[in-house]
Formats: sequence, C-alpha cells, structure tokens
Amino acid sequence: MTKNQSNIKCRIAVDAMGGDYAPKNELIGALDALKDSNDFELLLVGDKEKIISTARENNLDLDENLIYHASQVIEMSDTPTAAIKTKPDSSLVVGAKLVKEKKADAFVSAGNTGAMMAASTLIMGRIEGVSRPTIGATFPTVQNKFCMVFDAGASVDSKPQHLFEYSVLGTIFAKEIYNTSNPTVGILNVGEEESKGNELTFSTYKLLKESKINFRGNVEGRDILKGTVDIVVCDGFVGNIILKFGESVLTFLRTRIRNYADKGIVNKLKALIVKSVLRASLSDMDYQTHGGVPLLGVNGISIIGHGSSSPLAIKNMILRAKEMYDKQLIQKFERALKEYAITK
Amino acid sequence: MTKNQSNIKCRIAVDAMGGDYAPKNELIGALDALKDSNDFELLLVGDKEKIISTARENNLDLDENLIYHASQVIEMSDTPTAAIKTKPDSSLVVGAKLVKEKKADAFVSAGNTGAMMAASTLIMGRIEGVSRPTIGATFPTVQNKFCMVFDAGASVDSKPQHLFEYSVLGTIFAKEIYNTSNPTVGILNVGEEESKGNELTFSTYKLLKESKINFRGNVEGRDILKGTVDIVVCDGFVGNIILKFGESVLTFLRTRIRNYADKGIVNKLKALIVKSVLRASLSDMDYQTHGGVPLLGVNGISIIGHGSSSPLAIKNMILRAKEMYDKQLIQKFERALKEYAITK
Repeated sequence: MTKNQSNIKCRIAVDAMGGDYAPKNELIGALDALKDSNDFELLLVGDKEKIISTARENNLDLDENLIYHASQVIEMSDTPTAAIKTKPDSSLVVGAKLVKEKKADAFVSAGNTGAMMAASTLIMGRIEGVSRPTIGATFPTVQNKFCMVFDAGASVDSKPQHLFEYSVLGTIFAKEIYNTSNPTVGILNVGEEESKGNELTFSTYKLLKESKINFRGNVEGRDILKGTVDIVVCDGFVGNIILKFGESVLTFLRTRIRNYADKGIVNKLKALIVKSVLRASLSDMDYQTHGGVPLLGVNGISIIGHGSSSPLAIKNMILRAKEMYDKQLIQKFERALKEYAITK
Repeated sequence: MTKNQSNIKCRIAVDAMGGDYAPKNELIGALDALKDSNDFELLLVGDKEKIISTARENNLDLDENLIYHASQVIEMSDTPTAAIKTKPDSSLVVGAKLVKEKKADAFVSAGNTGAMMAASTLIMGRIEGVSRPTIGATFPTVQNKFCMVFDAGASVDSKPQHLFEYSVLGTIFAKEIYNTSNPTVGILNVGEEESKGNELTFSTYKLLKESKINFRGNVEGRDILKGTVDIVVCDGFVGNIILKFGESVLTFLRTRIRNYADKGIVNKLKALIVKSVLRASLSDMDYQTHGGVPLLGVNGISIIGHGSSSPLAIKNMILRAKEMYDKQLIQKFERALKEYAITK
C-alpha cells in the first residue's frame, strides 16, 4: 500500500454518537479497527462521559485520550441543514471541523445521512473542480466484480457537468479501491442509442464522448447487475431509487423464503438450505463489508454508514478511510478532474 | 365476469408475425386461448402462407378463415416511427388499424415494442382526457399482492398532468384486473416528505393531493417490493430503469446459483433445492403469467408482449385482452379521467 507523501499516520475521527446503536457499536468497531491496524490514530468524537460509561458497561479497554469531547448530538430525525447550524458542538459538526482544521484526515459517521452530507460539504468544502459532491452505491454483478452507481442520492436535478465529475471521481475510486484497471463508464438510460433518453443524458453523452473518460455509451437498468460497465452515472434521483430498490431485494427474498418455510417441516428444512446457499452466493451484497458510502468530491475523506451499522461495518468504514488516505485519493481526484476534462 | 354492453363477442387481433418465435409461438398460444375460452373471436394478422405452413409443420389444427393477411413484417431492429410509415401493410400496422376501424376490439403483439406503442398511439388514437399513453410494470410484493409502476417507459420528460393521468389509469386497472378495492397511489421519490425530490414530484404532489385519487404521498425505491401502495407513478425514464433492473434480478440470482452449483456435487444438489424453492416462492415474478404489458390510454385495447414470448405468454396476453374488453376498461378509463380530476 502506498504511504501518504507526508508519511504521517492517518488520523481518523469517528462520530461516536452517530448511528442507532451509538456509542456502543462505534466503540467496538473502532477498537477492532485499531486491533487490525495500529497504523492510524483514532479520535472518538462525542460525549466523553457517555463514551466512558459505555466502554465500562461493555468491558472495553478504552484509552480515554482517544476521546474528543462534543456535547451535542444530531438525531436521525433532525433536519440536516438546520441541525448543523443549531448544534455547532454536535459530534457530527465537530468531526467535520477536525478535518477542515487539519486535525484529522478523515471523518466517519453512521449518523444522520443528510446532516453528514451537509456538514462534510459545507465545512470541509469541495475539491477544486467539483461542483457537487456525490455518493456511490456499490452493486454486485454476475461477473463477480462491482458496479458503482453515481450519484446515489447526494443531489437531484444534475447537469451534464455534474455527471462528468461523477465519472472522474468514480473512475479514480474504482481504480484505487477495487483495483479495476481503466474502469469503464456508462450513462444510465432507457436505451443504448445516443439519441435515447432526456436532455441530461443526451448532453452528457456528448460531453463524455469528448473527454478522456473510458466511456462506453448508454447502459440500461439491466446492465448494473450484468456488470456491463464499472461505473454508471445518473442523476441522484434515479440513483437513489435504484439503490433503495436494490437494497429491498434481499428483504423481499428473505420474506418470501420465510413464508415458504412456514408451510411445513420439509419446507422449513429446504428453506435452511436456501438461506445458506444464498448467504454464500450473495456475500458481496453484505453492506457491512463495503466500508460505508464515501462522499466523493469533498475536500477530505468523509464516509457515511447505515444508521444500523454493526461493529463490523464501523470497523470496515474506518479501514476504508485509512485506505483512501494511504492511497492519496483526495489528491488523485483533484489531479484527475483536470486531466480527464481535456478533449481527446 | 361482466359482459360488454353490446353483448357482442370480443374480437381479438393477434400479431402473428411479432416476437422472436413468430409465427409458431403466436399460433400455439392463440389456439390454446381459444381452447380455454371460445367466448371471443380470433384474428391472426400476418403472412397467410407462412402462417399456414407453420401450422402444418407443427400439426396445428388451424381454421384458415381466422387469418387476416398482411404482407409485411416490422422487424425488432426497425426504427419504430419510421417502420410504421414505410411498412403500412405490416402485421403490426394492420392489427392497430383493425381496432381503429372497429373490426377488432383488441390487438396483441410480441413484436417491436416501440413500433407497437407508436402504432397503437398514432393509429388507434388516445382516450379523451389522456395526453400520453402509458405502460405499467407489475412487481411482486412481500404482501403477495402486486405493485404497478406507471410509467415504465412509454415516454420521458413527463409533466404533473401526465402522472395524474397515470394514477387514474392505474387505479382503474388495479381495481378491475387485480380486484384491489380503492387502490392506493404513491409518487416515486427520494424521500417521503412533500418537499423532497424535483420539480416534477413537487408539483405532482400538489395535484394528486387535490384530486380524488386515493393518494398516499411520496414513496421510495424500497416501497415497490414492500407493497406500500398499489400504484407507483413516476416519469418513464425512472420507471423503465426500475423495470429493467427488476427483470435482471432473477438472471443475477440464477447466475450466482449456477456458479455455486459448479463447485462440487454437494453444491449441485443444494442448488437444485434452491432453484425449486425459488421457483415456488417467486412464481408471481414469471412474466408469462402476467398477460403482457397493456398500453393504457389509447382508444382501444393494446397489449405488448416480450419479444421472446412463449405460447403460454401469448395465451395469457389474449385472455387479458378479453378480460379488459369484458370489463369495459376503455369506457371506465374515460369516465374515471373526468371523475377523478374534480377537486375534493
């Protein structure tokens, strides 16, 4: 793994108060990450007393010097932009500020997603060349590699320039994190022909065709799981709906199999086999292993987790943040945004 | 089943030349439908000689009087609007004309989808009160009922008025065909709050709230398979992507299970059980049983099938057309479009 130029240990701030099971899952996950790799510095941002008492209750061996006190908490039900103004000493705002003030290199939170996006964007600021930060949804494919969809809901009403930026950020991410050489990019559309779709897809097609992106034209809804391309770009409205639809497929399957199992003892036994086979075959759909959803385009490493993040999910988010730092992703994003725009 | 007012047998024109396996699957399916219900008149539209020879080759007992000759064929690769102009004697154009000229009550085709939509819309015309015809995608839900998504790709760049019309057409369809009493309608969006989304969802929310539609507000991508509402309305761009993504889920599962099976004899046996359980648990996802995709809003019954339609799929498309006729759906659509618009 490439070391960051400065050769200084990565400092990762973790929102200890975010998430439905905070601070417990956050503490366990963060300490597990430290056990896996002592090659980073941990900052647990949140209510000091609460963190210490939770550590005691769970017999966790916690060095209190790791705690960075923040007196307030942004709740899941809070309105994002309002909350980051009215709760300036919340763990979420404080964590983002640590990155802004160069006291941390990355910030990880399983708290209020909207507030995390707003705090990261407004406090950390954007990388030069980025008009809008974006989050990517990672889908499994029949080819056993990943397909990432940008934007998966950071914003709606995108312009072609935004989709171009998503293409660049996604290309670098797939190259560095998934080791995909020369990642391919497609525009999500209702047909493959250049003339298909709406004004956004039509203009984006022209823009990507002229750029240095490894552009493969339009792709359809079926191409995501097929893995036709590595990166799919679209407006956050469509991306978010596909992400949530995709997540609901596993719940749907589980419910159907449970209903099947309820119809007698033979069915129950068969259903057990089905569950174990699906678990083995679809292991790459487990959100816990994905290391959260990075908010790309902000000037710092910002990783957003599911509200219900398990300790394993928290640990992997932290290790992903470390990987992004070690591989100098922010610097590479900035460079790529300049390079890729040049007309062929 | 309610009889049509006129009490005249429904006349169903079938595009014998549409579909990847035409005219064979079309013939077998149509004759099977006649065996199931002799309560309709069949018209097989297409190349007379080809139809007769195919019937002979497959030992089908075909009454040649059922054939309505059409000398041309629109291919899957033809450009829709161009093809319906350059091939006026194609089975697809002739079938649509039969409905227009009141020589048939319904037209069913597994041919070129775009050409079928264009021919139906341009030749049959629209029902009064409909600005844009729409196709609906039927999704299974955890509640074992169906959720229909309109528009699944008939057009893009919709206006709020279009989504209102989709709501009305969908409501009547779900009520009459799926026997859903007082179907609920939701707008597909990135969040539940009224203020979420884009200009289209925002304005549509206001419009549906004032209408007599059983409107339940915004729903998210995950709500489709959850069955939160019976009808989901959205722009055809999003609907088409969700439809194609949804269709690809089964292919994805099949591939993953096949890969699992390839890893040894025990896996192979387990995979067989998985396949049989999934087949039983997901039977309502079988496109063949759905009776095709009706194009709602055109002034006549128009049903579009998969290019690869099996004889069973063709049969069910014909029986669905008959059901739509018997239940007077066109008349009910027209009435509902007037009734539902009145402000509460």
